[in-house]
Amino acid sequence: MSADLATVAWLTGLATDIESGPSPFSAAPVVVLDPDGSALLATSEDEAEGAADDVDVRAFPGFAVEDVDRAGESARVVLEAVAGARAVAVDLATLPGTVAAALAREGIDLADVSADLRRARAVKDREEVEAIRHAIAVADAGQAAARAALAVGRTELDLWTETRGAMERAAGGRIPVLADLVTGPRTADVGGLPGDRAVAQGDLLLVDLVPRVGAYWADSCATVAVDEAPVEARRAHDASRHALERAIALCQSGTRVEDIDAAARETVAEAGGAYPHHTGHGIGTAYHEEPRVIGGTDRVLEPGMVVALEPGAYGDGWGVRVEQVVVVTEGKPEILSGHDLAL
Amino acid sequence: MSADLATVAWLTGLATDIESGPSPFSAAPVVVLDPDGSALLATSEDEAEGAADDVDVRAFPGFAVEDVDRAGESARVVLEAVAGARAVAVDLATLPGTVAAALAREGIDLADVSADLRRARAVKDREEVEAIRHAIAVADAGQAAARAALAVGRTELDLWTETRGAMERAAGGRIPVLADLVTGPRTADVGGLPGDRAVAQGDLLLVDLVPRVGAYWADSCATVAVDEAPVEARRAHDASRHALERAIALCQSGTRVEDIDAAARETVAEAGGAYPHHTGHGIGTAYHEEPRVIGGTDRVLEPGMVVALEPGAYGDGWGVRVEQVVVVTEGKPEILSGHDLAL
Repeated sequence: MSADLATVAWLTGLATDIESGPSPFSAAPVVVLDPDGSALLATSEDEAEGAADDVDVRAFPGFAVEDVDRAGESARVVLEAVAGARAVAVDLATLPGTVAAALAREGIDLADVSADLRRARAVKDREEVEAIRHAIAVADAGQAAARAALAVGRTELDLWTETRGAMERAAGGRIPVLADLVTGPRTADVGGLPGDRAVAQGDLLLVDLVPRVGAYWADSCATVAVDEAPVEARRAHDASRHALERAIALCQSGTRVEDIDAAARETVAEAGGAYPHHTGHGIGTAYHEEPRVIGGTDRVLEPGMVVALEPGAYGDGWGVRVEQVVVVTEGKPEILSGHDLAL
Repeated sequence: MSADLATVAWLTGLATDIESGPSPFSAAPVVVLDPDGSALLATSEDEAEGAADDVDVRAFPGFAVEDVDRAGESARVVLEAVAGARAVAVDLATLPGTVAAALAREGIDLADVSADLRRARAVKDREEVEAIRHAIAVADAGQAAARAALAVGRTELDLWTETRGAMERAAGGRIPVLADLVTGPRTADVGGLPGDRAVAQGDLLLVDLVPRVGAYWADSCATVAVDEAPVEARRAHDASRHALERAIALCQSGTRVEDIDAAARETVAEAGGAYPHHTGHGIGTAYHEEPRVIGGTDRVLEPGMVVALEPGAYGDGWGVRVEQVVVVTEGKPEILSGHDLAL
């Protein structure tokens, strides 16, 4: 049982509206997976149609002129779904307190299996890879728009509006987007939200776009110079691209992620650079998920994992980063990203 | 104790990032209010700076290259904050399951006070009214941009990109926005997300903008005709404006909201119209909160309540709605909205 929006989306297909936070006309959707593999979804009737056809949807009232206790209704539906159970495997942190308390009141033992769920989600089937490919095409459209919009005198928010507009046109509607869009000295901060800073001569633009299309997220990053970049930044950018290529070449079934992490960092370090963040991470129904590509871990890549790799380097008043997404196979990884990585 | 983002914002000032859903590098912020009135906030160190100066912030790790059990850390901090308590008043539905389970394990009794919290949040102090006024100015900028962008041949997404861009420029950065933006026959559906429909001769545009600026939400709605609106829609629009004026005139301390609801519906009905939604609702750190302006309830207005009123009418292939926000006082209500309501 889970109310993690990413796990709900993974098991039921429901991509919850998230752009304006939790709705007062809903309660968190909860998925209950039967040992036989079938999924039951407790959700608001306003969201019920978002579930896949083979999901047993138990809806509680959505928008209503009357007052409705949606949290109570949700807990009631969930409790009905596990009636008779003595123990339930749960993603405990994500369960609403009302559900957790109701289960406790019934004397049902809870086993927290959140780590197992995260591991299971990391391996994608063909349909999921296609959904991510589709989302990445939307991110590519955003990257192209950001690059085209970059010009001295325009503000970060101007670039952002065109970038987001291009992604929403490509997607055919509004989509949630996590993004870094920073220019000039702000690129040294690794990332940040677009503001009213105007682009100046000699600036870099660092743009990391993470749109969700349907239930699946994309990820992409590029760094673009408004004219001639400083030599230090150019060298760091070259090194980041080499680090990315080297990391991708290593992305094969059976590889330890810490080896990929070490190789990417080493390549950047050889050019005198470094980055304070992870080398990469899985993407799917969450924008950061397993496998995290970091050091000091025994994670190993498996076929079907979808991994975003994003080495970079950050100096005094400048920062560069490049990112592509790959699918792990038995042989060479497949690169899903199609955006321009040129500085 | 509450993990409702709106209550957390109300008690601590923290406006959580919400546009891309819950962050994998955080856990839900939890506020613990001491009987002496002081607030303690358990949150990620990445969000800690968002809290007001007088809040006792207990931070758990945020973004990290290492693996961190943020849900566990959050539950530990929260449990420490209520150490020794035998009973805690909680907003139960909002508590993470890990926190609810940890409290239960300690034998701490939980009293669900969510309804009391919602009632308390409904009455705003002067500072909150100013924050809402500021957010409404941003919504006004969006309304002006939508009206200016309306032209035959442009798509809803085109209008949306300009509208959102204008609001983000007015706010100086990215902001979450809930919105209806529909044209032509889609206005009959009351609302909906902008899509790739192109504006045609004779169309109406229905645009309902709900941006959050800082921790506070605004709300606003207008209906705009691309040229001459059909006579039935014009009549319904006139009636909706009269209903809005009548509802606002009734917004005084001591008025029963069901009387406001009845008056607005009656005015629209006299012109042959009707609307299937509420007449209004409170706004604040949530975009829909108490007092809901509906029938069949004994809610009564109090000074300091901030109420959005939004009568409309929907027919065969058309729909109209107008909305303004007012502050309830002992005398005449103060209108916060400044956007153009003309058809």
